[in-house]
Amino acid sequence: MDFELNEQQRAFIDAARQFSDEHLAPQAATWDELQVFPKAVLRKAADMGFMGLYVPEAQGGLGLSRLDSSIIFEQLAMGCTSTTAYMTIHNMVSWMIAQFGTDQVKAEYCAKLVIGEWLGSYCLTEANAGSDAASLLTRADHDGDGYVINGAKAFISGAGETDVLIVMARTHKGGAKGISAFVVPAQAEGISYGRKEPKMGWNSQPTRSISFDQVRVPDHCLLGNEGDGFRFAMQGLDGGRINIAACSLGTAQQALNEARRYVVERHQFGHPLAQFQSVQFKLADMATELVAARQLVRYAAFKLDHEDPEMTAYCAMAKRMATDIGFKVCDQALQLFGGYGYIREYPLERHFRDVRVHQILEGTNEIMRLIIARRVLEDSADLH
Amino acid sequence: MDFELNEQQRAFIDAARQFSDEHLAPQAATWDELQVFPKAVLRKAADMGFMGLYVPEAQGGLGLSRLDSSIIFEQLAMGCTSTTAYMTIHNMVSWMIAQFGTDQVKAEYCAKLVIGEWLGSYCLTEANAGSDAASLLTRADHDGDGYVINGAKAFISGAGETDVLIVMARTHKGGAKGISAFVVPAQAEGISYGRKEPKMGWNSQPTRSISFDQVRVPDHCLLGNEGDGFRFAMQGLDGGRINIAACSLGTAQQALNEARRYVVERHQFGHPLAQFQSVQFKLADMATELVAARQLVRYAAFKLDHEDPEMTAYCAMAKRMATDIGFKVCDQALQLFGGYGYIREYPLERHFRDVRVHQILEGTNEIMRLIIARRVLEDSADLH
Amino acid sequence: MDFELNEQQRAFIDAARQFSDEHLAPQAATWDELQVFPKAVLRKAADMGFMGLYVPEAQGGLGLSRLDSSIIFEQLAMGCTSTTAYMTIHNMVSWMIAQFGTDQVKAEYCAKLVIGEWLGSYCLTEANAGSDAASLLTRADHDGDGYVINGAKAFISGAGETDVLIVMARTHKGGAKGISAFVVPAQAEGISYGRKEPKMGWNSQPTRSISFDQVRVPDHCLLGNEGDGFRFAMQGLDGGRINIAACSLGTAQQALNEARRYVVERHQFGHPLAQFQSVQFKLADMATELVAARQLVRYAAFKLDHEDPEMTAYCAMAKRMATDIGFKVCDQALQLFGGYGYIREYPLERHFRDVRVHQILEGTNEIMRLIIARRVLEDSADLH
Amino acid sequence: MDFELNEQQRAFIDAARQFSDEHLAPQAATWDELQVFPKAVLRKAADMGFMGLYVPEAQGGLGLSRLDSSIIFEQLAMGCTSTTAYMTIHNMVSWMIAQFGTDQVKAEYCAKLVIGEWLGSYCLTEANAGSDAASLLTRADHDGDGYVINGAKAFISGAGETDVLIVMARTHKGGAKGISAFVVPAQAEGISYGRKEPKMGWNSQPTRSISFDQVRVPDHCLLGNEGDGFRFAMQGLDGGRINIAACSLGTAQQALNEARRYVVERHQFGHPLAQFQSVQFKLADMATELVAARQLVRYAAFKLDHEDPEMTAYCAMAKRMATDIGFKVCDQALQLFGGYGYIREYPLERHFRDVRVHQILEGTNEIMRLIIARRVLEDSADLH
Repeated sequence: MDFELNEQQRAFIDAARQFSDEHLAPQAATWDELQVFPKAVLRKAADMGFMGLYVPEAQGGLGLSRLDSSIIFEQLAMGCTSTTAYMTIHNMVSWMIAQFGTDQVKAEYCAKLVIGEWLGSYCLTEANAGSDAASLLTRADHDGDGYVINGAKAFISGAGETDVLIVMARTHKGGAKGISAFVVPAQAEGISYGRKEPKMGWNSQPTRSISFDQVRVPDHCLLGNEGDGFRFAMQGLDGGRINIAACSLGTAQQALNEARRYVVERHQFGHPLAQFQSVQFKLADMATELVAARQLVRYAAFKLDHEDPEMTAYCAMAKRMATDIGFKVCDQALQLFGGYGYIREYPLERHFRDVRVHQILEGTNEIMRLIIARRVLEDSADLH
Repeated sequence: MDFELNEQQRAFIDAARQFSDEHLAPQAATWDELQVFPKAVLRKAADMGFMGLYVPEAQGGLGLSRLDSSIIFEQLAMGCTSTTAYMTIHNMVSWMIAQFGTDQVKAEYCAKLVIGEWLGSYCLTEANAGSDAASLLTRADHDGDGYVINGAKAFISGAGETDVLIVMARTHKGGAKGISAFVVPAQAEGISYGRKEPKMGWNSQPTRSISFDQVRVPDHCLLGNEGDGFRFAMQGLDGGRINIAACSLGTAQQALNEARRYVVERHQFGHPLAQFQSVQFKLADMATELVAARQLVRYAAFKLDHEDPEMTAYCAMAKRMATDIGFKVCDQALQLFGGYGYIREYPLERHFRDVRVHQILEGTNEIMRLIIARRVLEDSADLH
Repeated sequence: MDFELNEQQRAFIDAARQFSDEHLAPQAATWDELQVFPKAVLRKAADMGFMGLYVPEAQGGLGLSRLDSSIIFEQLAMGCTSTTAYMTIHNMVSWMIAQFGTDQVKAEYCAKLVIGEWLGSYCLTEANAGSDAASLLTRADHDGDGYVINGAKAFISGAGETDVLIVMARTHKGGAKGISAFVVPAQAEGISYGRKEPKMGWNSQPTRSISFDQVRVPDHCLLGNEGDGFRFAMQGLDGGRINIAACSLGTAQQALNEARRYVVERHQFGHPLAQFQSVQFKLADMATELVAARQLVRYAAFKLDHEDPEMTAYCAMAKRMATDIGFKVCDQALQLFGGYGYIREYPLERHFRDVRVHQILEGTNEIMRLIIARRVLEDSADLH
Repeated sequence: MDFELNEQQRAFIDAARQFSDEHLAPQAATWDELQVFPKAVLRKAADMGFMGLYVPEAQGGLGLSRLDSSIIFEQLAMGCTSTTAYMTIHNMVSWMIAQFGTDQVKAEYCAKLVIGEWLGSYCLTEANAGSDAASLLTRADHDGDGYVINGAKAFISGAGETDVLIVMARTHKGGAKGISAFVVPAQAEGISYGRKEPKMGWNSQPTRSISFDQVRVPDHCLLGNEGDGFRFAMQGLDGGRINIAACSLGTAQQALNEARRYVVERHQFGHPLAQFQSVQFKLADMATELVAARQLVRYAAFKLDHEDPEMTAYCAMAKRMATDIGFKVCDQALQLFGGYGYIREYPLERHFRDVRVHQILEGTNEIMRLIIARRVLEDSADLH
């Protein structure tokens, strides 16, 4: 076992932190307040390779491992949780096309996605099927040399301002096996977007529903084969969970750093807050749980990179724990700031609002528990 | 012992709930979004007696007990946490004047406060003394037949839109004993208001800092005697803690009711969420803790009404527990709503944002623990 | 509402505490170590009326309410958790006979039970039906002028040293409605007892399984009518849950008192432990949660006394919360004692072992959650 | 980074598990009940190298890393927590002599310790200085060609049945810097042992106090130089914390395995417990937290092996978290067993009693928080 980051990983951290400090952190509050989707900055992020981290080099990506990518996302999230979270979605879209797309689709889409010229959205969730992907209703009917898509998707990140959609739609009856994955141009005829959904946080990325009314795509926009969609989605989710967990880690680390600075400077009853034992204990627990969550995320990412048979359970564990601890740390950091934690002049309340959704999306943490339990209960389980 | 509400209390509940349903709930989301301070509705609340609940009848109030008042505030908070929380502050201001004011001040101010013609703000906190009231810097120097006030207050609810201030200021050196309380017209010369502080929640009440620059008030604006201010503030806080605890109870009950409805209607994996055991267990714990917190709040209010020697410890217990449980219940209700809990179309995220500050103000929950512990450790303690 | 104990209740407390201090506390450690069932002391408790607290006066009991009884049990448990817990079982047996027995049975059994001449055991649980009372297998077949009982019961408190059993047995097929309740002499022919079950705690009451092999009882030993057994058991459990909750309260209060004394006296790093803020915060939370749990238990007992339609849900809430908090408080008190908490010379580890089982019996706390949730989800629920 | 165990580590696991299954697990319940110190089995453990795991090979040990050792201790603890915990203490004693002893002392003691012919005890704690090592009162006064030791130690594992003591005693006034470490034969004249301390758990190792009355040791029994004792003790504690954390991991994993088996087999309400969602969620959380704790322990052990400047903070984190989670997992496993969890026929209540002390010793978990916080608050801290 070796727990040390290698030289390249330390270089990634430095680069990502510098980018985060320079391009994300200074504007995060404004993006939140004004609900700005920072396309220009995303283009800059692409210049650094951050929009195609684990896309193969052949398709213009950096070809990094999930572990390396998670380390980078963590650093970026320290500057802006919401923007980094969108970047993880864009990365998933880019990767899925690079992994499963036809050569034509790879050539057409990947090249522009990894340089950030085009942005991607991932269209899985439907209004009546939050965590129950197998019950999707959106249909893709084969017709001539293409497919006709009808239906609606909900809670789509980036929707209305992105260029490329991956859409999970049903090509056959039945459950999970009837679902296929398609690449769809975001402006295709028949696509319409709902209003921008006001949210508690994640305000630098627009969220909209999308309606598909007789949207026609050619055959080569099918990813893999018919019926592969659910499997691709599940594979995507393993990585997506690592990514969102990494965003929670970064945000929480940022909140802890800010709280640490605050308690050293702020005085009450004639002493810096840092001298009060209850404050010390709280910081100790925040730091401990964050270290543990980080190791768990890296462990799961490593398992994913090595296609360990237990990787799905480990990714679920990492997502569940890191997003729970991430929120808890932000909540406690806010509390340490007292009244200043509650006002927008300080970043704590934004961290708190932003990370809260991580416990819900990419499968709620309740779904994570089901995934883990199912595995724990199997005789062949080997989780350690 | 008798745990039943009496007939009058049940009537208060009905009246408050009707008011809440009619005048608060329908507009709460809008007030939050647009940061509206609903003065007209506060005037209507005054018509119901809600702006002077425990002001003596002689001064135009309802002369209710703290227990009765807490029951009413709980109902109101089900409709709008933030507006009700402001009402509790206004009630404290009205009561403090009625209790400690000169006849002239009572006549001049109380009459208008209880009918909601004038609104009140309570000015205790300073930027460098969040929970440490004894270290206040704002000064009131006697000069001729009045006092000259200089200094600044921070995080003042209603500031800039209210008419009457109670200001805690230092008339003598030293700690707590040098503080006195004054009634000050909000538009007095020398008073200036900071910008409206953007906050995570509590958006239907403006929060501003206030500067006092040679603000002159006549002698009769002193409440009680010089040096009484800290004692009055502490008395005010006992009741204020009950009130804020009641606001948490109401909000959490509302969130629980909404979650209950949602899980009965929402289906996943072919079943209503309500049939999943993990959902059931969560609802059971939310309901249990809320019932326990409510009884604790009423117990503390009863102790306050009967001037029990342990009342301060009980009020601290009630505030600590009800605001912690209140937030936890809102957080879990949000989680039960999944993605819908995070968007502004549903009220959950507002409840979540609004109650969070209750763990911070009226003395942080950490200060509550100090108050409780100090008492627990005294030989004469009799907490049961 | 009135949260004050009345004069009679305060007198009960004094009497119970005195009994506890004199007859239970001094010997509790010995009874635990040597596994002594203190029959002589139980007889003394009967002299005080503690063995028939809510048996009607007509049957020789004190005819107290469940609320009054819970207050007494709490005091007694401060001296010895395990012995008091047995007393609550004996009280349930006595009450059930007084409530549902024929005149003959009342005359024969109640008189001796309330004076402690005879001791009772309550035989509901079977090895394969821990929390699932409806699936009992023990049978009672009518035969001539009596019943013949066959089957086995598990985890029976007092078994092997008591004189009277209440046995739940199946007189008809099907679920809950086929169960009937019988009074059975503990030495009846055909009854045999398993070995004394070594347990983690509750060592002053023997636990054994009981086998019934063609055990014959006359018709008049049937309590109520055939098929009433499950209903009686459920009624018994409401009260039993209050009682066990009260035992947790008393034990936890005792542990808190001991911890409080310890931290005042014990020095570390040159200061009494009581001066460390983390110790203070822990004591504050222990005290707060204990006060809240106590109020909830009394609230539920009040509801039971008034036959409130929601009484079963409230009793489940009280049992769940008071036993969880009771254990938590004992665990934290043990921790405050450091190494001394772990050795038998101090009572902390005994409190910790004794209260742990309260989270399991009288329906596990998981079953409590199901009971509560079922009610919360009904439209007519009115839990507040 | 590489999270895979290497081949050698997997071989250690197999060997340790086999030893544990064969020699520890079958007798653990008996050792607990009868308070047997299993010297013969400890000798067998020595044959496997388990009594000198990180003693250098030159002194007869296996010369393993702390990481490797922790992996082995975890496996052993699955069979018997208490015996393995003693073995970790013996290993610390052996290591300390090998590391800091004179050649003469190494030759005399180490050889016999690593083969288990002699057993060791570690004498740091005093009755009035639980976690405050710097305030030790036991004195060692230089006299001629040796030292004379006077004082008393408390809570010494193995005391009365071991052969070699390491004793921390004061050679100079003042705090930590006046403490020196000595090797002392356990039967030296002037040493007397207190009665065997009855404890809640850890019953396979005797605990006694030790009195030193004019106990004379030659100069070469001093470890290192005068004044080094506190530093040695602190170094020992870093490793001791890893070890005790590993014992918690093993016990908790064993409890989880047993609970998993139980819920698959045990039926309630017509279904195996494993089908109830609340049971599944509990198992999922137990498994997740245990995986996270294990990674944290290994991470800290790795840092210790690499003499990372933050190693003390990481060891404190690992000890705090793994012992807290270890207890929690055992507690929940016990609860899943219901009534069977509480009786001695099943191992759950033993696991529960045994691991509880890990939160207290090697520095309480409160002391861990202080150590962590102190480091978190330093500007140079780099904990990740």
